[in-house]
Amino acid sequence: MGNTRKILVISGPNLNLLGTREPEIYGSKTLGDMQDLMMGYAREKAIDLVFFQSNVEGDIINYIHENRNADGIVINPAAFTHTSIALRDALTTTGIPAVEVHLSNIHAREEFRRISLTAPVCIGQISGFGIHSYLLGLEALDQHLSKGNS
Amino acid sequence: MGNTRKILVISGPNLNLLGTREPEIYGSKTLGDMQDLMMGYAREKAIDLVFFQSNVEGDIINYIHENRNADGIVINPAAFTHTSIALRDALTTTGIPAVEVHLSNIHAREEFRRISLTAPVCIGQISGFGIHSYLLGLEALDQHLSKGNS
Amino acid sequence: MGNTRKILVISGPNLNLLGTREPEIYGSKTLGDMQDLMMGYAREKAIDLVFFQSNVEGDIINYIHENRNADGIVINPAAFTHTSIALRDALTTTGIPAVEVHLSNIHAREEFRRISLTAPVCIGQISGFGIHSYLLGLEALDQHLSKGNS
Amino acid sequence: MGNTRKILVISGPNLNLLGTREPEIYGSKTLGDMQDLMMGYAREKAIDLVFFQSNVEGDIINYIHENRNADGIVINPAAFTHTSIALRDALTTTGIPAVEVHLSNIHAREEFRRISLTAPVCIGQISGFGIHSYLLGLEALDQHLSKGNS
Amino acid sequence: MGNTRKILVISGPNLNLLGTREPEIYGSKTLGDMQDLMMGYAREKAIDLVFFQSNVEGDIINYIHENRNADGIVINPAAFTHTSIALRDALTTTGIPAVEVHLSNIHAREEFRRISLTAPVCIGQISGFGIHSYLLGLEALDQHLSKGNS
Amino acid sequence: MGNTRKILVISGPNLNLLGTREPEIYGSKTLGDMQDLMMGYAREKAIDLVFFQSNVEGDIINYIHENRNADGIVINPAAFTHTSIALRDALTTTGIPAVEVHLSNIHAREEFRRISLTAPVCIGQISGFGIHSYLLGLEALDQHLSKGNS
Amino acid sequence: MGNTRKILVISGPNLNLLGTREPEIYGSKTLGDMQDLMMGYAREKAIDLVFFQSNVEGDIINYIHENRNADGIVINPAAFTHTSIALRDALTTTGIPAVEVHLSNIHAREEFRRISLTAPVCIGQISGFGIHSYLLGLEALDQHLSKGNS
Amino acid sequence: MGNTRKILVISGPNLNLLGTREPEIYGSKTLGDMQDLMMGYAREKAIDLVFFQSNVEGDIINYIHENRNADGIVINPAAFTHTSIALRDALTTTGIPAVEVHLSNIHAREEFRRISLTAPVCIGQISGFGIHSYLLGLEALDQHLSKGNS
Amino acid sequence: MGNTRKILVISGPNLNLLGTREPEIYGSKTLGDMQDLMMGYAREKAIDLVFFQSNVEGDIINYIHENRNADGIVINPAAFTHTSIALRDALTTTGIPAVEVHLSNIHAREEFRRISLTAPVCIGQISGFGIHSYLLGLEALDQHLSKGNS
Amino acid sequence: MGNTRKILVISGPNLNLLGTREPEIYGSKTLGDMQDLMMGYAREKAIDLVFFQSNVEGDIINYIHENRNADGIVINPAAFTHTSIALRDALTTTGIPAVEVHLSNIHAREEFRRISLTAPVCIGQISGFGIHSYLLGLEALDQHLSKGNS
Amino acid sequence: MGNTRKILVISGPNLNLLGTREPEIYGSKTLGDMQDLMMGYAREKAIDLVFFQSNVEGDIINYIHENRNADGIVINPAAFTHTSIALRDALTTTGIPAVEVHLSNIHAREEFRRISLTAPVCIGQISGFGIHSYLLGLEALDQHLSKGNS
Amino acid sequence: MGNTRKILVISGPNLNLLGTREPEIYGSKTLGDMQDLMMGYAREKAIDLVFFQSNVEGDIINYIHENRNADGIVINPAAFTHTSIALRDALTTTGIPAVEVHLSNIHAREEFRRISLTAPVCIGQISGFGIHSYLLGLEALDQHLSKGNS
Repeated sequence: MGNTRKILVISGPNLNLLGTREPEIYGSKTLGDMQDLMMGYAREKAIDLVFFQSNVEGDIINYIHENRNADGIVINPAAFTHTSIALRDALTTTGIPAVEVHLSNIHAREEFRRISLTAPVCIGQISGFGIHSYLLGLEALDQHLSKGNS
Repeated sequence: MGNTRKILVISGPNLNLLGTREPEIYGSKTLGDMQDLMMGYAREKAIDLVFFQSNVEGDIINYIHENRNADGIVINPAAFTHTSIALRDALTTTGIPAVEVHLSNIHAREEFRRISLTAPVCIGQISGFGIHSYLLGLEALDQHLSKGNS
Repeated sequence: MGNTRKILVISGPNLNLLGTREPEIYGSKTLGDMQDLMMGYAREKAIDLVFFQSNVEGDIINYIHENRNADGIVINPAAFTHTSIALRDALTTTGIPAVEVHLSNIHAREEFRRISLTAPVCIGQISGFGIHSYLLGLEALDQHLSKGNS
Repeated sequence: MGNTRKILVISGPNLNLLGTREPEIYGSKTLGDMQDLMMGYAREKAIDLVFFQSNVEGDIINYIHENRNADGIVINPAAFTHTSIALRDALTTTGIPAVEVHLSNIHAREEFRRISLTAPVCIGQISGFGIHSYLLGLEALDQHLSKGNS
Repeated sequence: MGNTRKILVISGPNLNLLGTREPEIYGSKTLGDMQDLMMGYAREKAIDLVFFQSNVEGDIINYIHENRNADGIVINPAAFTHTSIALRDALTTTGIPAVEVHLSNIHAREEFRRISLTAPVCIGQISGFGIHSYLLGLEALDQHLSKGNS
Repeated sequence: MGNTRKILVISGPNLNLLGTREPEIYGSKTLGDMQDLMMGYAREKAIDLVFFQSNVEGDIINYIHENRNADGIVINPAAFTHTSIALRDALTTTGIPAVEVHLSNIHAREEFRRISLTAPVCIGQISGFGIHSYLLGLEALDQHLSKGNS
Repeated sequence: MGNTRKILVISGPNLNLLGTREPEIYGSKTLGDMQDLMMGYAREKAIDLVFFQSNVEGDIINYIHENRNADGIVINPAAFTHTSIALRDALTTTGIPAVEVHLSNIHAREEFRRISLTAPVCIGQISGFGIHSYLLGLEALDQHLSKGNS
Repeated sequence: MGNTRKILVISGPNLNLLGTREPEIYGSKTLGDMQDLMMGYAREKAIDLVFFQSNVEGDIINYIHENRNADGIVINPAAFTHTSIALRDALTTTGIPAVEVHLSNIHAREEFRRISLTAPVCIGQISGFGIHSYLLGLEALDQHLSKGNS
Repeated sequence: MGNTRKILVISGPNLNLLGTREPEIYGSKTLGDMQDLMMGYAREKAIDLVFFQSNVEGDIINYIHENRNADGIVINPAAFTHTSIALRDALTTTGIPAVEVHLSNIHAREEFRRISLTAPVCIGQISGFGIHSYLLGLEALDQHLSKGNS
Repeated sequence: MGNTRKILVISGPNLNLLGTREPEIYGSKTLGDMQDLMMGYAREKAIDLVFFQSNVEGDIINYIHENRNADGIVINPAAFTHTSIALRDALTTTGIPAVEVHLSNIHAREEFRRISLTAPVCIGQISGFGIHSYLLGLEALDQHLSKGNS
Repeated sequence: MGNTRKILVISGPNLNLLGTREPEIYGSKTLGDMQDLMMGYAREKAIDLVFFQSNVEGDIINYIHENRNADGIVINPAAFTHTSIALRDALTTTGIPAVEVHLSNIHAREEFRRISLTAPVCIGQISGFGIHSYLLGLEALDQHLSKGNS
Repeated sequence: MGNTRKILVISGPNLNLLGTREPEIYGSKTLGDMQDLMMGYAREKAIDLVFFQSNVEGDIINYIHENRNADGIVINPAAFTHTSIALRDALTTTGIPAVEVHLSNIHAREEFRRISLTAPVCIGQISGFGIHSYLLGLEALDQHLSKGNS
């Protein structure tokens, strides 16, 4: 574990349009901005980040399966947060430590967005800070992998 | 806003016993450890941190009222997260930007801990990373105050 | 009962900030304005009004216990309306006739503000008329004590 | 608005029998007593009160439509409080400011009487003070129309 | 009570079309057949039966009010069984002993027909026997009025 | 069907104590009184009545099975009304036409007595008329068997 | 069926005020505009349209009964959509094919407007297109009557 | 907007088998028949229709993203109507005006088909008219785009 | 009441296997141990204890009926606590004062064991103390019978 | 553990008024009577009892924290039973064995008093025996501490 | 375990009438046919099958207790599946491995048949294959006992 | 039907990792082991088995459509069991007889795994026997196809 860590950064449905999508909720930053932000941190920490986005639930599951040698996952499941038991099972099956992140504060939106199917099988959840939620998630994951959760 | 920021760090009921309390859930770190961790960050950023803990709901509300000139709040409402409409109202009344943090992953615990009354009136919520949840909360708040939420 | 009546006017959590708090919901009048309004009526009617506000649930209960020789209570339990069985029990234990008042129309707000735990043990409830809700509550209570509810 | 105000006082189903109906709940006063009580106040304030009672939901809606030039409504929807979306829509359609009143404390009765469909579109609700609920409702409405809700 | 009893026989909405309406549920008998059946029994027992049918909820309430000198009511509220608190209040207001009857077995139909708002304020309920439900209701009411419920 | 009909009259748990049991709810008549009342009707109509009471759910099911040559059943399932799917299945399995009867008005009692598991598989239900509920049930059943439900 | 069809166009409570009522929800067109729009289509298709509006539930039921020789109904039950079992029963009793229409998109409004009691007994439902919902409903009904639903 | 409009016509899972699938519910017409029907209308109106069907939720989302220059969407989400928050988000993200259509009357089917996750973010919903639901949806959309919803 | 009291000690289904049954929940003591423990107390107090256990709901009801001259009951209804309205009715019918006891803390087990159908008709409930729950129940009952509940 | 045990006896809100409070529910005994009753038992068993009552939730939590060297707790949380997660957490945090007691039978009162938040983290619960519930709780706790729960 | 296994085959209420009971749901085969089918398999595998059927819940519990030396149970609890916590407790108390079987597909029937109280304490559940469900259950149990569940 | 049968064996999301995935729940056998097990049976019975696994809901639906000439399906929908109405519709659309199987006992797991959307449209369901659930499902299906369900 002295070597470079491989961390998957997974974004769920509709996030490819980030920045054009309802900016009053999600902000005007794009996925590219998010990647730049995270790369800065990763370079300092010698973390190997791999980015993936898909609108297809099964493709995300396949991607997690294929990369199950990864050390950790930062995942924004977007709409799948609330509907996908299959994604939850993919996380428990592979056993990769994961942190769930959300751009918006899901606790302040529609009723059906308040319960997460995936969070209970993650280390923790971060929501409400725009693309910085991803960065905070990476820090939290990195900290967790380095020393364990205190 | 070029000056030192004043940030309240508020901890709710039973957190005074942190470190002795169910360590398998909350870890062995104490509130003192948490304060040290946060002070390191605060010194670098010229943030003025003020710490407060109480087991009395009304005392926390009074404290928020008396310090309503603060620039932000990092708050772990603990059990009050799920029962205190009064605390929620204190946050909206004073209008101070707040970030809600939790040591444990509340989404993976008892049913009655999954819904937060306070999170909908905060900027966001961070849960599951032990005392680092506080630090992540401070970073998120600092970032929010500096540039706004992107 | 030919003598001056003693009426408690109790205000719950966050009402000390009235006038600064979300004015689009609660108006710009303060607790002081409310007291002036009520004192005008009280003077004419030879009523002895005593005002009390606290953010601590237990302090309100203690206050009711200590003043259980009062003839009546006008109470705005604020957030405690929806969460405090203890306050409800304090009203039934002391048996003092009470009228519940609210500044805003609680029936038109969040779902969790639509049910009152205290109203079922009061004479009645008045909600939606700003600080005049207090005055209407006092009139209703005075009328009730003078002739009984018709 | 310096002139006489026209206020509709509307009573819903079964209230024509007031005084004979379950006096332990509703008291022994009649609709006539209520009208006398209100007329006293109205004369002082130069308010033009018009009284209407019907057991037919649609007739009440028609009446509101036909009198939509009125300045305000004091309405006791009785049983329709809990079942009539059409009456609610009549209030929002005409846009006349209204105050909902109830003789008994509906919060202390059967479960199905605790939720009001009409209160969310009124200024406020007054319940539990017998025929004085009507008078308090008139005062509240008058106050609201004169200065706005503070 | 040695004299002729006056019993109201009230039928709710859509029952005027009885016999043409979904005969597989309600049978092919008409309201006229029902009246003949009941008149046979009434003649023997010296009961004065008065029949009333309306599709307007308020007209049924008015009718009950105007005939509140009646000794009893056999009522088939039809669809109003499940929606009319006003009709329930009319029965409790006038205090006339009533028996609720239904042509079809409401317990075996749609979920929303299984709970009755009016039955809790009646002596009892009879459902499932076509127009004979009316006759059984009359017998039950007659028996109740003669000797009290044993 | 020109011959004597065999009708089972089945009473469920605790009805053996009828007359001593909560007389304010169930009246002071006994099962013996009920049998006398029914025998009078049965003699006129050449019906062969057989009475059975048990506190054991399975014994009632056995009894129905053993007498499945019967022409009909008048059954007061008492507490089993609300808990016994097995009794419901016994009625559908044997296919004997049944009428459900209750001494008290179950619609006016505790919430858990308002829904019947057995009524949906009976011809109809009669409740609220003391031991006359049994007699009315017998008449309804007899009528049903003679001419079909109209 | 080669002749002119008679189609009833029924509008429920408060729709007589269409155009003045909450234009941000319902638009500024009136019932008269709607009738003109429909008449254009009807003339081409040799359809005999009859328009009816009432705020009284029972009057709408009576109207449907009296016109049960009609070939079809376009109905906007407005608030009755969600509360009137009696109106639902009127549609099933008369058996006239009906299409339910709504001006606003009821699926995007208050929770209590999302479920329709009448739609399950109609051919279909159209909602959200202002007064054109009526026209679309007429076309759909006409198509259904001409060739059956494909 | 004087030019040809581009309208997407999207059909969800299992609709590729239309015509062979449960014809008693969905009719015997195929997707090809539906396309012919719509093309007739489109030609007259100079609308450019593009048809798309997929059984994969993510492919539909991708398709909407890739065609977000379209002027409108007629969409039959089929089973995804009730389960896909991701599809809902795709509609709000791209902001293309959409009309939801259904072949069968979803309000008259299983309970889980009565609530739509996508309808609240559409202009309106049309259900119950077989393949003509698509045509009506196109007309409604066309009308909406031409003059706005009245 | 100066004489020996007769107290029934009733144990419900599966308690005959006590001591062999899931000892981590119920302990290793047997029903015999429980009887010895209670007999010690009973001898001192001149109480006549009678023990009964059955797995058949109806047999327990029969036993209570046959011993309705008893002065009190200590009952552990086991699984019937949550399912038997008939047992509840047996307790209210005979009117014998009863105390409900449980070996395990039912409030800390499966959701379906948290509500008791029988406790509301008992004097009180004791749960969580192994076979000492029986002894505590006897003391509580003895105290209640001697002086009434204070 | 051969030495004197220290047992906390904690009483929640409104219990300071015991004896004057709704005597038909809680009896006429006072907290002083309760203390006398318990001291008799404690003297025999060489138990060191410490009594505490407060109406402030946080003060009870503080008291438990400050006395976390105690061997056990007998606690009557009164209204906090049903609302205080913080009190529940105080019990689990300190890990002191506790027994929950109630004067009245909470299972036979309002619906909202039937579920306890604290009982699942206690050894057991005793309710319904007036001030003797405290004594029984002490015995149960003493027994538990001496030999473990059998 | 090299010897003959003893397997109990238990059938719950109303199954004694199998073959005559609602054949469109349960088929025309009898319990005797089921026994023949199973005996064929048992003979080959040297399994000692014992058959038991009862309509009395407590008798089934007694039977399981008396045969708690058995190696396994194939049980069709019929209606008790959904109502008997006592039967569930009998399975956990004795600890005999059990397989739950159903003739019909309980997932496709009434809502109240979809949840099983007993299945969670069995190895697994098989439903929908007529009397072959028993045979499949025996095979599954035999396989489980031979090699453990893989 | 005298020829070889074609049976699809479909496995849903995450089952490709079977054997590595949470072995304490799913066992250590792989999909390959399952295929071997089934092939043994299939060879004897001259059944043509085709295996398919996918993590993409839509691909499974496509696969079923493309193979709708198959004689039967053994399907383990895994997480889709509880979320996919589209898969349910694919089974009813193609009309292929199907048996639902599960490795683990879904009735003994999380609440959200207890209800199956697909089972109601299958012949039956088998759950809890590891990879033998597949084999039992094949036998059940084979039996069903050969002689019909008895």
